Amino acid sequence: MLTDRYELTMLAAALADGTAGRRCVFEVFARRLPDGRRYGVVAGLGRLLDELARFRFGDAELTQLAETGVVDATTLDWLADYRFAGDIDGYPEGELYFPGSPVLTVTGSFAEAVVLETLALSVLNHDCAIASAAARMVAAAGGRPLIEMGSRRTHERAAVACARAAYLAGFASTSNLEASRQFGIPTAGTAAHAFILLHDDEQVAFASQVATLGTKTTLLVDTYDIRRGIERAVAAAGTELGAIRIDSGDLGELARQARDQLDALGARATRIVLSGDLDEYAIAALRAEPVDAYGVGTSVVTGSGAPTAGMVYKLVEVDGRPVAKRSSAKESRGGRKSAMRRYKPTGTALEEVVHRADSPLPAGPHDRVLPVPLMRGGQRVADLETLEQSRERLRAALVSVPWEGLKLSKGDPAIPTVFQ
Amino acid sequence: MLTDRYELTMLAAALADGTAGRRCVFEVFARRLPDGRRYGVVAGLGRLLDELARFRFGDAELTQLAETGVVDATTLDWLADYRFAGDIDGYPEGELYFPGSPVLTVTGSFAEAVVLETLALSVLNHDCAIASAAARMVAAAGGRPLIEMGSRRTHERAAVACARAAYLAGFASTSNLEASRQFGIPTAGTAAHAFILLHDDEQVAFASQVATLGTKTTLLVDTYDIRRGIERAVAAAGTELGAIRIDSGDLGELARQARDQLDALGARATRIVLSGDLDEYAIAALRAEPVDAYGVGTSVVTGSGAPTAGMVYKLVEVDGRPVAKRSSAKESRGGRKSAMRRYKPTGTALEEVVHRADSPLPAGPHDRVLPVPLMRGGQRVADLETLEQSRERLRAALVSVPWEGLKLSKGDPAIPTVFQ
Repeated sequence: MLTDRYELTMLAAALADGTAGRRCVFEVFARRLPDGRRYGVVAGLGRLLDELARFRFGDAELTQLAETGVVDATTLDWLADYRFAGDIDGYPEGELYFPGSPVLTVTGSFAEAVVLETLALSVLNHDCAIASAAARMVAAAGGRPLIEMGSRRTHERAAVACARAAYLAGFASTSNLEASRQFGIPTAGTAAHAFILLHDDEQVAFASQVATLGTKTTLLVDTYDIRRGIERAVAAAGTELGAIRIDSGDLGELARQARDQLDALGARATRIVLSGDLDEYAIAALRAEPVDAYGVGTSVVTGSGAPTAGMVYKLVEVDGRPVAKRSSAKESRGGRKSAMRRYKPTGTALEEVVHRADSPLPAGPHDRVLPVPLMRGGQRVADLETLEQSRERLRAALVSVPWEGLKLSKGDPAIPTVFQ
Repeated sequence: MLTDRYELTMLAAALADGTAGRRCVFEVFARRLPDGRRYGVVAGLGRLLDELARFRFGDAELTQLAETGVVDATTLDWLADYRFAGDIDGYPEGELYFPGSPVLTVTGSFAEAVVLETLALSVLNHDCAIASAAARMVAAAGGRPLIEMGSRRTHERAAVACARAAYLAGFASTSNLEASRQFGIPTAGTAAHAFILLHDDEQVAFASQVATLGTKTTLLVDTYDIRRGIERAVAAAGTELGAIRIDSGDLGELARQARDQLDALGARATRIVLSGDLDEYAIAALRAEPVDAYGVGTSVVTGSGAPTAGMVYKLVEVDGRPVAKRSSAKESRGGRKSAMRRYKPTGTALEEVVHRADSPLPAGPHDRVLPVPLMRGGQRVADLETLEQSRERLRAALVSVPWEGLKLSKGDPAIPTVFQ
C-alpha cells in the first residue's frame, strides 16, 4: 500500500479499456541535480529490490480498498495476484549520476509497472539524496572517518536508510543499531550529556564509563568546562584513553587547545572527535585542525539542503513506440535509453552520453556502459553487490571526476550530459 | 532497535554503577524555530505513543547486540524485560509551540527513559517539521483545499507519516493509500501523464478514465496542448466534469485561461486543480487566480526548507535535583518545567510562559496550561484526541495568533517565550 491512489485508479481504467497489458518502459531520472551540486550518487537499489520482493496487496489492504471504493472488483482481483514479472535495469549503487542519466529502467506491462512508481521514487529519491550529500562530506573530511549520528533528526524508519546511504557513501559507522542489524553497518557511540548529568560529578561519570566500556571509549568532555573535562577524562582513563568528544563551541579552536592539552598530559594517541551541527562546509573548514573523526547528524540525514533527489518515473515507450509529454514545460525524451560514460585515456571522466537503447553507440577503449541488468522476468539476475563493493565503486568513481567536479561550491555538473 | 548505540552503552554503565534507577526527567523542546518561522505545530504524539507500546527488544535484537558486543549480559537481561513504566506529559497534537516550549516531558528511571531518546526525537522532529510547513501552506491557501501528494519525494515509510502530519495541519486529503489504511485519511488522485501516453491519443485516454471513474473525476490536461486538452476533457466528460489538473507551466496564467475556456464551454462547475512544485509562497501568489485546489508534493514532505524541527531530548532533573549543561554554547535550563499561554481578553495570544513545574504560576481567566498527561505508570491516561480533534485544535490555535505571526515572511516567533 506504499502506493499513490492514482496508480490504482489508472490501473482500473487501463484494465477496463484493454491497455493494461501494453508493454511499457518507465525510466527514472533526475532532470537536474539539486542546488548547484556537481554529481549525484546512486543509492537505494538494494533496498528497492528487497521492497519489490515484498510488494503485495494482502487481504487487509484489499478489504480497505474495497471498503473505500478506490477501485472496482476486477482491479481488486488483479491486485490480489500481483507480482512484478518484468525486467529492471539500472545504475549500480555507488555509481555517479548526472542530469538525464537513466538511473532505473522498468519494463513490463503497464499494469505491473505503473503501480511501482511511488515505491521506486520514494526509495531512490530518499537514498540518493542522502548518499549524494554524504559523499560531499566524505570528500571534505579528506580521509578522516565520519560517524553518522542523525537518526534523531529524521523519521525513525528513514533513519535506518540514512545510515545505509551514508555508509555506502563512505561514512565509517553509524549510531543506529537497527542499521547494524539490517545491513551490518558498524556502529559507534559513547555517551550523551545526560550520562554526565546523571552522576554526582563529571569525574564519577567518566570513571563509570571507563569501568564499563574500557579505556578505549570516547568521553564527552564539554558538559561543564572543557579544560577541566579533559583533565578528568585522562585522570579517569589514563593516557590510553581512546578519544574525547566535543559537541559545542568553536570547534576548530577547541580542537587545537584539546590536542595541546592531551599531548601535554601524555595522551598523545587519544583521538579528538568533533560533532555539533557539522556539514560539508564546516568539515572542510576544520581540515587544518587536529581532528581525528567527525560526528555528523542533521546535515547528512536531511541531504544538506537537498532532502530529495528530484527523480521522476516517466513512461517513455509503449509497445515499442517512443512516447513523451509535449506541453511547454518539463519536456521528456521518448524511447528506452541507455548510457555510457566516456573517459580520457588518463581515466578522467569526460561526458555522460545518454542514447536510445535501440541505437547503441560505438564504445571506445576507455568508455563504460552504465546500466546493468537487475531483474529479468521478475527474478533478480544475480546477487547484488555488497555495500562494501558499492562503497568501493563510489570511491573509484569519484577519483575519475575532473577536479573541479569535486568542489563543494555551487556550479555545473562535473561532466556534461550529451543526449544522442 | 530504533535506538542509538550510545543509549545502550550509557545504560550499561549506569546499570553497573547503580545510577540506572535514579528518577529522571527528560524534556523535549526546540531551542529555536527553523529559519525565521513564526510558530511550530506539534504533531506525531499519537504515532509516538503507538511506537512506545511496541518498543521492545526481541530475541533477534538481543542476539545481535550480544554478537556485536555492544553491551554486557546484565544489560541484555534488562533489555529483555524492557517496558516503559514511567510518566509522559506533553503538548497535544495540533497545539502550537515556540522556542523552549516543553513539548514532551518523560519521567522515569534513567534506564527506562534514556533508551527512548532517539525514537521520541525521530518521531517529533519529523512530524512537527512537516506539520509546521503544512500549516503555512494551509494558511496561504486561504480556505482552498490542499492535496498532499509528496510520497514519492521522501522515504517510503516517512511518506505515511507526512500524509498524517499534513492532514493534521489542515490538508484535505493525501495520495498515499497506506495513510488511508493506517490513519483513515481521505485519499485523492486521478491520473498521471503516463496514463495519457499509454493510449493512442488524449481523447481516448480521457474517455477511458471517465468510463471507469465517472464524470466527477479529475482529468490531467497538460500532456500535449492545454487548450486542446480542456476541449477534449469536456468532450469526454461533458459539462459535469469534476475537475481538470494542470501540472506545469505558468500556473496563474494557465488557471485564468482554463477558467475562461471552461466557462465558455459551459463547464462552469468544473474545478481547476493546480500542482507542480508548489510551496507556501507559490500558493499565496495564486490567491487571486481562479484555483479550486492545490496538489502539493516536494515542499510539504521536505518541510519546505526545514526538514527537521531541531528538537532535543535533555535531562533536566535527577532525583528531584535540577541539572543542566554548563559549557559555553547550547546552555539548557535545569528543572522540570510546565508552560502556560497567556491571552488578551479578545483571545489573542500574548506570550508563552515556561516555568518550573514546582512553582506554578497564577493563571488569569484567559490563560491556558499547555501540557496534558499522556502516560502514567506506562499506561496511556486516556484515549488520545482523534486527528479530527487535533485539526480543530490547530485551526483554533492559529486564529489566536497575532496577525503578524501568520505572515509567511521570515521573522520573530509569533509570541515571545518568557522563562520564569
